[in-house]
Order: sequence, then C-alpha cells, then structure tokens
Amino acid sequence: MRLSLGELASAIGADLRGDATRVVDRIATLQGAGPGAVAFLSNRRYRHLLAGTRAAAVILSPADAAACPTAALVMANPYLGYARAATRLSPPLRPPQGVHPSAWVSDSARVDASAWVGPQAVVEAGAELAAEVSVGPSCVVGQGARLGVGTRLVANVTICWGVTIGARVLVHPGAVIGADGFGIANDGGVWVKIPQLGSVVVGDDVEIGANTTIDRGALEDTVVEDGVKLDNQIQVGHNCRIGAHTAIAGCTGIAGSTRIGRRCMIGGGVGINGHIEICDDVQISARSAVHQSISEPGKYSSGTPLQPQAQWLRNVPRYRQIDDMYKRLKRLTGTGE
Amino acid sequence: MRLSLGELASAIGADLRGDATRVVDRIATLQGAGPGAVAFLSNRRYRHLLAGTRAAAVILSPADAAACPTAALVMANPYLGYARAATRLSPPLRPPQGVHPSAWVSDSARVDASAWVGPQAVVEAGAELAAEVSVGPSCVVGQGARLGVGTRLVANVTICWGVTIGARVLVHPGAVIGADGFGIANDGGVWVKIPQLGSVVVGDDVEIGANTTIDRGALEDTVVEDGVKLDNQIQVGHNCRIGAHTAIAGCTGIAGSTRIGRRCMIGGGVGINGHIEICDDVQISARSAVHQSISEPGKYSSGTPLQPQAQWLRNVPRYRQIDDMYKRLKRLTGTGE
Amino acid sequence: MRLSLGELASAIGADLRGDATRVVDRIATLQGAGPGAVAFLSNRRYRHLLAGTRAAAVILSPADAAACPTAALVMANPYLGYARAATRLSPPLRPPQGVHPSAWVSDSARVDASAWVGPQAVVEAGAELAAEVSVGPSCVVGQGARLGVGTRLVANVTICWGVTIGARVLVHPGAVIGADGFGIANDGGVWVKIPQLGSVVVGDDVEIGANTTIDRGALEDTVVEDGVKLDNQIQVGHNCRIGAHTAIAGCTGIAGSTRIGRRCMIGGGVGINGHIEICDDVQISARSAVHQSISEPGKYSSGTPLQPQAQWLRNVPRYRQIDDMYKRLKRLTGTGE
Repeated sequence: MRLSLGELASAIGADLRGDATRVVDRIATLQGAGPGAVAFLSNRRYRHLLAGTRAAAVILSPADAAACPTAALVMANPYLGYARAATRLSPPLRPPQGVHPSAWVSDSARVDASAWVGPQAVVEAGAELAAEVSVGPSCVVGQGARLGVGTRLVANVTICWGVTIGARVLVHPGAVIGADGFGIANDGGVWVKIPQLGSVVVGDDVEIGANTTIDRGALEDTVVEDGVKLDNQIQVGHNCRIGAHTAIAGCTGIAGSTRIGRRCMIGGGVGINGHIEICDDVQISARSAVHQSISEPGKYSSGTPLQPQAQWLRNVPRYRQIDDMYKRLKRLTGTGE
Repeated sequence: MRLSLGELASAIGADLRGDATRVVDRIATLQGAGPGAVAFLSNRRYRHLLAGTRAAAVILSPADAAACPTAALVMANPYLGYARAATRLSPPLRPPQGVHPSAWVSDSARVDASAWVGPQAVVEAGAELAAEVSVGPSCVVGQGARLGVGTRLVANVTICWGVTIGARVLVHPGAVIGADGFGIANDGGVWVKIPQLGSVVVGDDVEIGANTTIDRGALEDTVVEDGVKLDNQIQVGHNCRIGAHTAIAGCTGIAGSTRIGRRCMIGGGVGINGHIEICDDVQISARSAVHQSISEPGKYSSGTPLQPQAQWLRNVPRYRQIDDMYKRLKRLTGTGE
Repeated sequence: MRLSLGELASAIGADLRGDATRVVDRIATLQGAGPGAVAFLSNRRYRHLLAGTRAAAVILSPADAAACPTAALVMANPYLGYARAATRLSPPLRPPQGVHPSAWVSDSARVDASAWVGPQAVVEAGAELAAEVSVGPSCVVGQGARLGVGTRLVANVTICWGVTIGARVLVHPGAVIGADGFGIANDGGVWVKIPQLGSVVVGDDVEIGANTTIDRGALEDTVVEDGVKLDNQIQVGHNCRIGAHTAIAGCTGIAGSTRIGRRCMIGGGVGINGHIEICDDVQISARSAVHQSISEPGKYSSGTPLQPQAQWLRNVPRYRQIDDMYKRLKRLTGTGE
C-alpha cells in the first residue's frame, strides 16, 4: 500500500515534521529501512541507530524528534504508531469466499455466503460460520460450534463441539479450543473420568497462538473475554475466566477454575495454580509460579537467577536448608518472627 | 438421560434420603442447579452454597447430609459420586459407523465394521482399527498402528507408524503419539541423528490430553500403562515408562528413559530429569523440578514463592550467595555439616 | 539391512576385533541383543551388562574392549558409532513419489517430480517443493513456502506462507513454522495487533520436534541456522536467531528477538528472556531461567531442588526473606558488600 506521509500521519495520529507529499510503501527497522520505508524508534536502546537511518520517515517520541535526520512522525507512543502504520501499509489480505472443493461441510452447517472454508477443512453438523469467517486448510469446526463475523482460523486448528467464538478472533495453527478439561475422580486407586459438559466462550477481538489449548468447562463454561491476547503454547484449564484485554506470553499454564482479571500482563512460562483469583491490572514476570490469589494490582515475580553451574551446585543443598539457617540466625540476633 | 433418584442412588452407590421417584435429567453446580438437576458438594469451600441450592438432590458426604435442604445422595466420596452421576446422566454419544467419503483408508488397513473413520482422516497401510474405534476428523493413523476396542481419537490427532494403543483410550486433539525421540550423537561439533526404532505402547483406559506428545523409543518401546491420565501439553520422552493409574497435570515434561511408578500424582508444569526412577505412590506438586530418583512414597515440592517484584529484585542476588551465607553462619554458630 | 562386521566397522569408523565375515542385521541394547544384533556400550552405568550380552558384536571404547565377550567394534565415541550403525542397519524408507489423489495441490505450486504429497495434504499457491521432498498426511504448506531437497514433513505439520526451509530438514507432527509472532501495542488499555511481516528461514539438516512452534519475524526473519536440533514443544519467538549446531531439549521457551550462539546445548523446560544474546558454546541445564545475556562459554544453571513437601513448606517463607537474612548476617560478621 502506497501512502503519502501526510496521509500516514493522519492515519496513525502523529504530528508530521517534514514533506507531507513524500510517498512511502512499507515499514522497516531503523537499520533495514530504505528510501521508501517508514521506520520507528520506541526502545531507547536503538537510539544510536537513528542518525544513520535511510528511512523516508521515522515514528518517534517528542524527546527524540530533534535528533531525527529525516521526516519525523511524532507521537507519545511510537510503538503504537508502528502498529498502526504497519497495519495501514500492509493490510491483511481478504480471504476468498466459498467452500473449497476438497473441504467437507455438513449439510446442516450454516455457512455465510461471504465466508471461506479452505482445502481439506471440516465443518460439522450444526456449526455456524458468520460473515467473512475464514476457516483455513485442515481446520476442524466441531458440531454446533459458532464463529463470529470476520473470525479467522489459520490452519490445522481444532474448534470442538459447541464452542462459541466471537467476532474478529484470530486463531493460529494447532490451537485446540474446547477439548475436555482434566476432570477425574479416584475410585480406590482407579481414575474415573468426569464428563466435561460445559463449553468455551471466546469474546471478540481475541488472538490465540499456535498450539495453545483452552479446555471446555466441567459444568459451566471456560470464558475468554474480549480483547484477550494469548501467545503460543499456553494451556488454559477448564472453568477458567480470563478478563478483558489481558495479555499472556507463551508457554504459560493456568490450572482449572482460576479467574484472571482485566488488563493483566502475564509473562512467558508462568505457572498459575487452580481455584485462585488474580485481580485486575496485575503484572507477573516470566517464569513465575503463582500459588495463591493476588488481590493487589502491581508487579510480581519469583524464581532463582541463572548461575555458573559450579556455583549452583554449591548452592543447591543450601536451598533446602534455608529454614534452618533462618532459625539459627534468629537465635543469634534475637529478631524475626 | 432421565433417571429417578432411586435409580441414580443405586447407579452411583449412594444412600438416598428423600423421594426415590423424583426424576432428574442433568448434573449442575450447587449455584447453577434448577429443579431437574442433581448437584454435589465435595469441596468444603462451597459448603455455604448448600442451604440456597435449588437442586432436586445433592450428592454429599455423611457429615454434610444433615444440612441438605433437599434430597440427599449420601456417600463417602461425593466427588466420585459426581463423576458417576454425570456419566449416567450424560453418557457419551455413540459415534457413527463406517468410513466418511472424504476420509482416506489404505486398502491394506483393517477397519472393523463397527469402527468410524471421520471426515478428512487418514488410515495408512496395515493399520488396524478394532471394534467401535472412532477416528475423528483430520486424524492420521500411521502405517501398522493398532487401536484397541472403543478407542477414540477426537480430531487432528497423529498416531505414528507402528504405535499400539489399547482399549477405551481417549486421545484429544493435536496429540502426537510416536514421533521420533530426541536422539542425537555429536560428531566433532555436528549432530548425527540416531534412528528411533522402538515404538509406543499405550495400555487400556488411558486418556491423553490436547497437544500432548509421547515419543517412540530409540531401541525399545516407550510404555504408558493402563489407566494413566495425561492432561494437555505434556511431553513424554523416548523410552519412558509411566506406571498404571498415574495422573499427570498439564505442561509437565519428562525427559527420556525415566520410569514413573504406579498411582503417582504429578502436578502441572513439573520437569522430570531423564534416566531416573520414581517409585509408586509419589505426589509431586506443580512446578517442581525433579533432578534425581525418588525411592520413598510421599509428597515432594520445589520452587520459590511469588513476591512483589521490588522484594524479589532485592532477593535475586542473595539466591546466588546462599552457600556463602551458610558458611558464614556456620563459622558463627559452629554447627552444620 | 544385512552387513558383515567388516563392512560395518568400515562404515562406522571402528576398529574390528573379531570375525569380519559374521553378518548382523540390526542394532539392540546389550540386554536385548540376540545373535544377529550389534549392541553398544557408551554409558558406563551399563558396563555390568557387557559380560552377559548375546550380541554378535559390541561397539565400545578402547577402555572397555578387553572385557568384551564377543566381537568388538572399538572407537573413541561409541555413541556416535551407535548412531552410524543404526542408520546403516535401518536406513529410512524412501517415501513414494507423486501426489496422493486425496491431497490438494494448487496449480501454481511447483512440485518436483520426485517429491511426494501425501493423503489429505495441502500445498498452496506458489509453494515450491524441491526434489525428494515428502509432505506427509494432513500437512499444510502455505502460499509461497519453499522446501529444500529431501526435506520431510511427517504429518499434520503447518508451514505458513512464505517460510523457507532448507535441505534434509525433518519436521515432526504438529509443528508450526511461521505463525504470527506475539506483537501487540497498547492503546489506552486495548491491544492493537502488529502485523508480522517477516518470515522464518530454516537452514539445512535441521530437526524440529512434535508440536514445536517457530514464529515469523515482525519485520525481519526468524532464523534457525544449519544443523540445529529442536526437541518437542519448544517455542521460538519472533526475530530470534538460533546458531548452527545448537541442540535444545523439549518444552524450552525462547522469547522474541533473542540470539543464541552456535554449538549451544540447552536443556529441557528452560525459559530464555527476549532481546538477549547467548554466546557460542554455552550449556544451560534443564529448567533454568535465563534473564540476561551470557557472554562467556560454559555451564549455567538455576532453580531450587526437590524437597519433601513438609520441609518445603517451612522453607517457602524464608525464600522471601533471604535479603533480610543476608543483611542481618552482614551486620553480625561485618563482611559482604
């Protein structure tokens, strides 16, 4: 897409300092940008690259504008400007419409005329695909599942029976929405399966990463609210609720029946216990273990730092002895609980 | 399914206190239950909801029976009663029989007349599907693989060549059984692949979660014994053996050649080293790291607790210094090894 | 495959002590080997099994050769000898050629006559499959993706649009190469997606495990260099670069824009932060958390050890207090920073 800098400035909400008629057609890094490209500076670490950039324009903050060697698109949040500019310059392709001849769609499924069902895909009985839905190659949409307007399953996605997905949701390859939750009861040493009778309800404008799994509820529904962004290989247990506009990085696991608030930011590889509640506006750093509920907004962390292995091997037995150390120290100093 | 409370009590092994002729047709939570529903109380946390329930009957323990405002189905393990009642009231649907026209089944595969091969599925040469097997949409059953009576692959499951699966096994979407183990030998800085010539043998009544992976053995077989329950996104390395009736929660990884005993309960996000042995009846809490063999039954844990980030940042360097702290403390007190 | 011990010794680079005309046809463990099998001894733990083996020959080190009760194939690295011998005795089967009638291949895709596209597979517009490529059942090769000579996708693999894969790459089931990276910008509490415009470039002789995910770059490419070996369920974030001949075990997650050097060995379940750099020849033990760049080759670790749960519960509050303990100890001893 070709845009003048004037058009781009107005589209992204930036203040232009430079030639409004100059045309750009792509976004690039400060280092990789050529004459037709717009670059951006949001991470101060890359500020030293500004002087040498060949970009036609740079999206940057007021503090950096004076140092810009070319046209400047000035705004308070240049990273947001980058997101908007990239979307304008590289809009997503419209998928085709109709049903690919190699797909299989049940006679009782309702597929909007503007929807697309790709090669080798399956749409089972009673499923509903709203306008402009795109079901990519080899995806499976189970019985009675419903996909809202403009939702897109990229490829090899599984939507299980009865799951409801909102509008403009993007689901990446290998994701599984609505598999049975892990419900088992012990009968004298043998496990008895508990039927998982709830479903999954996903709101609007959600993104679900590759190979992420969201289990259906045992009796009620697992819920992912509007605007939630889930990275790859996340596991969401049955009966969880994830609040609107929460973002979770890859490889995080959330055990069953946990509720996470709105606008939380959860790092990668975090483990969150079941049956707990995390309030709104909590940030949890990567690799943390969350054993208990969190009732105060703020930043939380856990874990031990990387060490040279020889040092770590000396420390390992001490990690087991820390309560003994604490007690001995308390006897020496007479303080502590 | 509609049942009288008398029929239900006898089906689940409970003692009925109330009208045996009253009819129920579903299971629900204490809060969500209406007049036709059976609820249950197993977690004492929810005891305050008992008085207000609108359920027709509640499955609960003898200790809670007196407080039940409606018919009571009394048994020692109400959670097991819930599992049994849910299964009776919502029995799994029988899949259809035959081969879907969009599936591909090799001429040399042996498919029982009562089995089902769903849309876009693949059954390769020499594979065997026993009675009442169900191969869901887009599943792949590799060459010579064998599925026992009543086993069900939900959708997008991959069973690799030569894998053997027992009876009544349930495999959720995206699971991969029998991919090559991670076997490599170093040749002057370059890795040489070791062919993975063993297979995977899965027993009866096993459940395997979404996107879980179980690798084939290098020379002998990886074995998952009867009644094992695996949650989502678990990784089982080559040559492992998981003992009967062991249950493992999501995101746990088990490195190669490790043996896990019977009736173990392993939490989510646990990491288990390779070439070790864990005895029967071990319980490992979520997020633990298991570096060495365990020879005593019991409960084990590891990991540091969540902290406000400001506190954690002060603690981080100290985690590296704990052996120095130990030694200084020992000099002060003259005790310790 | 049948080989004489003379042929085998020369194929694997071993020194034969025994009858060069004796024929073997398979590889086995010391315990499992019968008269036609070759065994190997590389892990000293299994040395006690040497005397009782029924193998026709054993691959072992010079130090163990004298104790060998049968023909000895002597070499400095017997594990490498095992890899070579297994490959010679059990060479991978040649896949068929052509396009399976149930596959769908776009008219504009370029498929070499010696390539194979299996049942239910999809090859989209503009994709290129070089000689001897094998696309297994239900795999999806996206628009414009390119697969080099001899590359094999096992089953249910997704290669997204525009991804480039080198020669002799092996991709296991459920792997996803080229899904969108996790790029989002915050606009007053609502997340805005950043189009992921880069791609993934995978070198030659790479192996990618089951359900592993490698995201496409935001603006430039995510790169996996030659000879890299990735186990199952690994997550590689956008814009990462993994250096040649690095091996990574299962369940490890690497956040975006991180560079990992050559010949690194990274254990299972490791978490690696984004925007950092790990130099060549680093070894990181399983379950470690890597928060910062590593500039010195060597071995690194983190994490606390497994403990009986009762002990751990006493230790847990102390892990939060370690900085206080450090400061009190410093006051007592007058040392430390």
